[in-house]
Amino acid sequence: MVRKTRVVPAGSGLHFGASRRGIVYLVGAGPGDPDLLTLRAARRIREAEVAVCDHLVGEAILGLLPRRCERIYAGKERANHALPQAEINKLLVALAREGRRVVRLKGGDPYVFGRGGEEAEFLAEYGIDFEVIPGVTSANGAAAYAGIPLTHREHSQALRLVTAHCRDSLDTLDWASLARERQTLAFYMGVAGLGAIRDGLLRHGRDAATPVAIVEHASRAQQRVTLATLAELEDVAMRGHIESPALLVVGEVAALAARLHWFGAPPRHWEALRRVA
Amino acid sequence: MVRKTRVVPAGSGLHFGASRRGIVYLVGAGPGDPDLLTLRAARRIREAEVAVCDHLVGEAILGLLPRRCERIYAGKERANHALPQAEINKLLVALAREGRRVVRLKGGDPYVFGRGGEEAEFLAEYGIDFEVIPGVTSANGAAAYAGIPLTHREHSQALRLVTAHCRDSLDTLDWASLARERQTLAFYMGVAGLGAIRDGLLRHGRDAATPVAIVEHASRAQQRVTLATLAELEDVAMRGHIESPALLVVGEVAALAARLHWFGAPPRHWEALRRVA
Repeated sequence: MVRKTRVVPAGSGLHFGASRRGIVYLVGAGPGDPDLLTLRAARRIREAEVAVCDHLVGEAILGLLPRRCERIYAGKERANHALPQAEINKLLVALAREGRRVVRLKGGDPYVFGRGGEEAEFLAEYGIDFEVIPGVTSANGAAAYAGIPLTHREHSQALRLVTAHCRDSLDTLDWASLARERQTLAFYMGVAGLGAIRDGLLRHGRDAATPVAIVEHASRAQQRVTLATLAELEDVAMRGHIESPALLVVGEVAALAARLHWFGAPPRHWEALRRVA
Repeated sequence: MVRKTRVVPAGSGLHFGASRRGIVYLVGAGPGDPDLLTLRAARRIREAEVAVCDHLVGEAILGLLPRRCERIYAGKERANHALPQAEINKLLVALAREGRRVVRLKGGDPYVFGRGGEEAEFLAEYGIDFEVIPGVTSANGAAAYAGIPLTHREHSQALRLVTAHCRDSLDTLDWASLARERQTLAFYMGVAGLGAIRDGLLRHGRDAATPVAIVEHASRAQQRVTLATLAELEDVAMRGHIESPALLVVGEVAALAARLHWFGAPPRHWEALRRVA
C-alpha cells in the first residue's frame, strides 16, 4: 500500500531486496552553494541510491548525485504538485525497506523549519535506521555571504529565527516580544508577508528606522541584497521585484552589510534608489 | 606596532612580503566533528598559511591544517591567557599585510556569538580582503546529533538562540518573552548559568515540567545528552558533572531526543537516574 506513494518508477537496477538494511539520511543541503555542503553531506549525496528532494535544493547540488541515483521530487513549491508530508514520510519508509541508501535532501538544516522532525519521528516509529546531518541554515548562509553579523556585542545579543510563510503563521506571532530592541530577527518568508511583518513590528513599537536587509538567492551567483528601513519594507515588497527564496533580517546589524559585503554585487540601498527614480 | 600583538614567532618560511595580497578567511568550524566542516571551510583550512584559533576548535580540525601552517591560539578559555578581542583584530590585519592566507578558525558559525562581526568590521576598516565562511552552528549540530528538531509543527514555530555566559548577560535577558510557550530556546551557556535560567523562566510562568536537554561535546565521540525538566535544571547543574562546551535546549522538542537519538550513547534521563540513586 505504501508503494502507491511512489511518484516515479524505480527501475534503476539498484535494488538489493531485503538482504541489506536500508537507511535514510536526512541531509541539510545548506543555503544553495554546493561549496557550503558539509563533508558528510557531500559524501552521503555522492553515495545515494535514491534521493527525495525539496524544491529549494538547487541544480548544482542535485548534480552531485550519482548518475544512477533515482531522483524523486517532493515539492513543495506552491504552484507545482507536491507530495503531502504524510506521503513523504511513507515514501521514505518504503524506500528504506527496499534496502536502499535513501538521501532526503532539504534546504538549509533539516531541523530548522524543514519538517525533518516529523520525518525522523515516522522513521523511528517504523524502526528504520536514520541519520540527521545538520546543515548551514539559510539564515547563517545569507548572513555570512551578505555581510550581516547576526549577533554583535554592540547591537544584538540574541537571534530569533521565525517562519512566516502564510497569513496564519503571521497572525500567531508574538509581535510585542519580536518588536523589542537589541535582537536580530531572521524571517524565513514569502514576499507576501513583508507588509504584515512591517505592520506587526511598527504597531508594537519597533523603531521605523530599524535597518532591514532582504537577501535573495543567498550564496548563489544571483545573490541580491536590498537594504532598507523597517518603514520601507512594504514598498520594497511592492516595487522591489523580490524573488524567493529570500530571507529578511531585521535589526541594527542589517546595516553592516553596506560595509561588510564581500560576495557578489554590492547591496542596493532602497532609499537611495528611490531618490534617483 | 601592531607586530607586538604576535604571540608566537613567525619563522615558518611562508612569508611572501608585500608582493602578494593577503586575505583573511573567517571560517566557521562547526560543532566539532571535522565531518561537519563545509567543503569550502575544509579547503581554506588545508590551504592556510597561518591560523588563528579559538579554544573551541578541537584537535581533529586543527589536524587538517598543513604541517607548515603557523598556529596562533587566541583563547578564550577562562582559565588561560587569551588575547583580548582588540589584539586579535590587530593581529589579523598584521598577518594579512604580510601577504599571507590567514584562516581565523571559530567554533560554530563566525556570525553567531563568535564576535566575527567585530573582526570583519576591523578588516574592512583597514582595507584587508576577507571572506566569511558560514558554519553549522553549535545549536544546529547539537540538535541534529542529539535527536532534537529545533522547530516542529506541533511544538515550536520559532527558535531563539541566546548567549548566557556571564551573570551580566543573564540579567539583561527578556525573561517574560523567553518564558512564552511554543518556541525553542537554545542557550549557549556555562554550567554556572543553569540555575539562573531555570529561575528566570519559572518566575515568568514557563511550565516547570517543560522538557530540557543539555548536550555536552555535541557531535564528538564523547557526546552526552541529559534530559530533564526545567524544574530539575539546577539539580542537574549541581550534581550532573556537566562539562563545557554544552548547549541547553528548552522546549517541548527536547523530549524527542528520547526517541530520535541516533548518535552515540542514548540520553540519560535525570528523573529516572535520581529514582535509582
